[in-house]
Amino acid sequence: MNVSLSKPRLRPSAATLAALSDDLAALFGQRLMAAQAVREQHGHTLTWVKNQPPDLVVFPQTTAEVSEIVRLCAARDVPVVPFGTGTSLEGHVNAPFGGVSVDLSLMKAIIAVHEEDLDCVVEPGVTRKELNEHLRDKGLFFPIDPGADASIGGMVATRASGTNAVRYGTMKDVVLSLTVVMPDGAIVKTASRARKSSAGYDLTRLMIGSEGTLGIVTEITLRLQGIPEAISAGICPFPSVKAACDAVIVTIQTGIPVARIELLDEVQVRAVNLHSNLTLPEKPLLLLEFHGTVAGVQEQAERFADIAAEFEGGPFDWATKAEDRSRLWQARHDSYWAARGLRPGAESVATDVCVPISRLAECVDETKRDIVASGLIAPIVGHVGDGNFHVQPLVSIDDPAEVAACEAFVDRLVRRALAMEGTCTGEHGVGQKKMKYLEIEHGPAALDLMRALKRSIDPHNIMNPGKIVAL
Amino acid sequence: MNVSLSKPRLRPSAATLAALSDDLAALFGQRLMAAQAVREQHGHTLTWVKNQPPDLVVFPQTTAEVSEIVRLCAARDVPVVPFGTGTSLEGHVNAPFGGVSVDLSLMKAIIAVHEEDLDCVVEPGVTRKELNEHLRDKGLFFPIDPGADASIGGMVATRASGTNAVRYGTMKDVVLSLTVVMPDGAIVKTASRARKSSAGYDLTRLMIGSEGTLGIVTEITLRLQGIPEAISAGICPFPSVKAACDAVIVTIQTGIPVARIELLDEVQVRAVNLHSNLTLPEKPLLLLEFHGTVAGVQEQAERFADIAAEFEGGPFDWATKAEDRSRLWQARHDSYWAARGLRPGAESVATDVCVPISRLAECVDETKRDIVASGLIAPIVGHVGDGNFHVQPLVSIDDPAEVAACEAFVDRLVRRALAMEGTCTGEHGVGQKKMKYLEIEHGPAALDLMRALKRSIDPHNIMNPGKIVAL
Repeated sequence: MNVSLSKPRLRPSAATLAALSDDLAALFGQRLMAAQAVREQHGHTLTWVKNQPPDLVVFPQTTAEVSEIVRLCAARDVPVVPFGTGTSLEGHVNAPFGGVSVDLSLMKAIIAVHEEDLDCVVEPGVTRKELNEHLRDKGLFFPIDPGADASIGGMVATRASGTNAVRYGTMKDVVLSLTVVMPDGAIVKTASRARKSSAGYDLTRLMIGSEGTLGIVTEITLRLQGIPEAISAGICPFPSVKAACDAVIVTIQTGIPVARIELLDEVQVRAVNLHSNLTLPEKPLLLLEFHGTVAGVQEQAERFADIAAEFEGGPFDWATKAEDRSRLWQARHDSYWAARGLRPGAESVATDVCVPISRLAECVDETKRDIVASGLIAPIVGHVGDGNFHVQPLVSIDDPAEVAACEAFVDRLVRRALAMEGTCTGEHGVGQKKMKYLEIEHGPAALDLMRALKRSIDPHNIMNPGKIVAL
Repeated sequence: MNVSLSKPRLRPSAATLAALSDDLAALFGQRLMAAQAVREQHGHTLTWVKNQPPDLVVFPQTTAEVSEIVRLCAARDVPVVPFGTGTSLEGHVNAPFGGVSVDLSLMKAIIAVHEEDLDCVVEPGVTRKELNEHLRDKGLFFPIDPGADASIGGMVATRASGTNAVRYGTMKDVVLSLTVVMPDGAIVKTASRARKSSAGYDLTRLMIGSEGTLGIVTEITLRLQGIPEAISAGICPFPSVKAACDAVIVTIQTGIPVARIELLDEVQVRAVNLHSNLTLPEKPLLLLEFHGTVAGVQEQAERFADIAAEFEGGPFDWATKAEDRSRLWQARHDSYWAARGLRPGAESVATDVCVPISRLAECVDETKRDIVASGLIAPIVGHVGDGNFHVQPLVSIDDPAEVAACEAFVDRLVRRALAMEGTCTGEHGVGQKKMKYLEIEHGPAALDLMRALKRSIDPHNIMNPGKIVAL
């Protein structure tokens, strides 16, 4: 395979941008913006990744408008960077070569909910919470829940998951079909609305996780779940991270269909207590949720409590009251902000890795020792049913030695996960910060194949350049 | 996108084949075969699709040997057709342009079973029954079960599913990683062994369902399930197909985690009774299986019985004895052979479609009327929890009028499913017989994208030519 891209990506010239701006203004009027503040808000903001603002920001309202934007950019060889809510964590929305940020926040229609089929069709700007708000009265829910109230389009782009993935899967498992504007402006529907199909190459999964480098998703058909008859949640402290992880392994092996099983290390528990005014025991903690019938949920909880006791965990404190549950999971979802509260003024470095579950305790343990040795403050939370965990060092960005120590720590973290047959990112995505690990993880032949895919679909490298494989 | 393939595929010349045969014989000795019977056995055999034998058949034992075969074929521009057990149904293993059939049946190693991680690593020639035999003592099982005892490699190639898919997913959901020999002989590992990853393009899913047109799968890492503590199975007759389908919809909506829910129409029930010496009621019938705890399975069965009664189904006859269950599911899996018994000497035309579950009753009903109007004998079985069903017309292949009537019937069946937002194949794959429907199902832009993928990965169209998108 000839895998080089046709030419190095350059920033568009001022003249090119002025001409493109005129073209776009004619079509989009006030929905085209170039103010510094808007541009910076559309560069990367949430972690220590440096902000690289686009030159222009445009707010389309339809698939046809997105196609028109892409055609105009393609004609002038100008980069296109899709933007959802800006909550990604690895620099995905940065514009290292300038260009046009396509902000999809006006595309917020919930086009259809098919209750009998347990699916819905939405535009990419709908956020996960907005969708669930809309679904609640119908007895349905959408289970994928990254920490932020991300847009569905962004969640497709990063192959997002969250706390429910152990039971309900990740974005790759819940998307039935996509409408995608390709780098030449063509509009592709990737699949029918059937639950399953063997009709040709899996275009849906090709686009999921492609981070806007192969096209812009403008419509999504999602599988939904029925809201369970009964839900219970609980917390269970353990004497060590290893004991907690061992309890998780046995829980999964035993086939308990746990809906959520989350680890917080003692540092993260302290952060959550401070931030959310809770009094959780400041030890390694599992947060759990069970979905099912009333009897089924009770049975699951009792079985888990037995397993926890085997590993000296407990007491397992469980509750079925909705308000207690909401408070607990809101605290979990706020863990990013809670962690930041541990060191006000510091930058937050949010990173994630994922390993086979048998290696999880060892990986987390080594990482905790490394955190201490590196002199970092870095809480850990994990979707441990999947072997996925997050480390969030808090770093004084003005201290070059500290920044260097953190960079080195993240590098060791990733290499540790890869050495344990894991991946450099379980759910955040590659963006700018994980590009250098793709070849170590996948090997040169697989990376060549990824480059061949990028080159064949986006030969001029206009779609979100500088991410995943295209420099 | 420039989507034409570089040149039309031609058969290799006799001189090319002789030279290639010498090269291969030097490496493979007795594991290279060219006898007519062996060649025909490696063309398509199971349905009315015409047998198109390859020129040579070779039996590699390692990934490196597969790579060597592909390199030799690529160097001489000779087609390569991967072969598992030959149980595919749409002409996948035919060699319309001749070339080399790569029979993977000697690659039968179960390389590793990671009990703690609930995964295993296998070679492509292992069949699903062999794998489950190996796993039984470990308390684990592999849930994907197409009717035939297919090879795991073949199941990857066709994105197979089966009766458990409603609960455990299809091949796209259970494969963690693949090793693939690419059309230039390069060896690609598509992913790590982590449960989930956001590290770049989804090469795993790109290969699943590609039917050997993008490469040859030589190693597979599969997710496994724990054998449930309790299993119960049951049968429930209904007054009509519509009543049965409506009961299925409510069962799924209610969130009963049914492991299997299969429809047999009254024609298929008669066939099964005759073939397996059973006395099932000769009415539209649902066959069900529940997995869980003892209490959970009982609760599921009781809830289903209530739902069935709402739709005038019943009595729901359920049993937890393993031997009764085995007999029932063996009968279900033998339905292909049972159907053939309805008209000895006739050819069997096995085809499948899949529609959103809300359209299932309507689609099956219209299809049954069409069968009657067409004067065909054509039993129906369905994985109705997914909206997927099979129709198996039995046709006298020597009667051109009957063959034409059947062709027209299948064409109407597919177009009916597509008009209901369904797919031309839920699990059999495209092969040779469904190629003409891909553009109708996906539209020209999506088909262009599929062609671009094929062209970029296999620019000389040597991998299983004449299937999916490459003529």
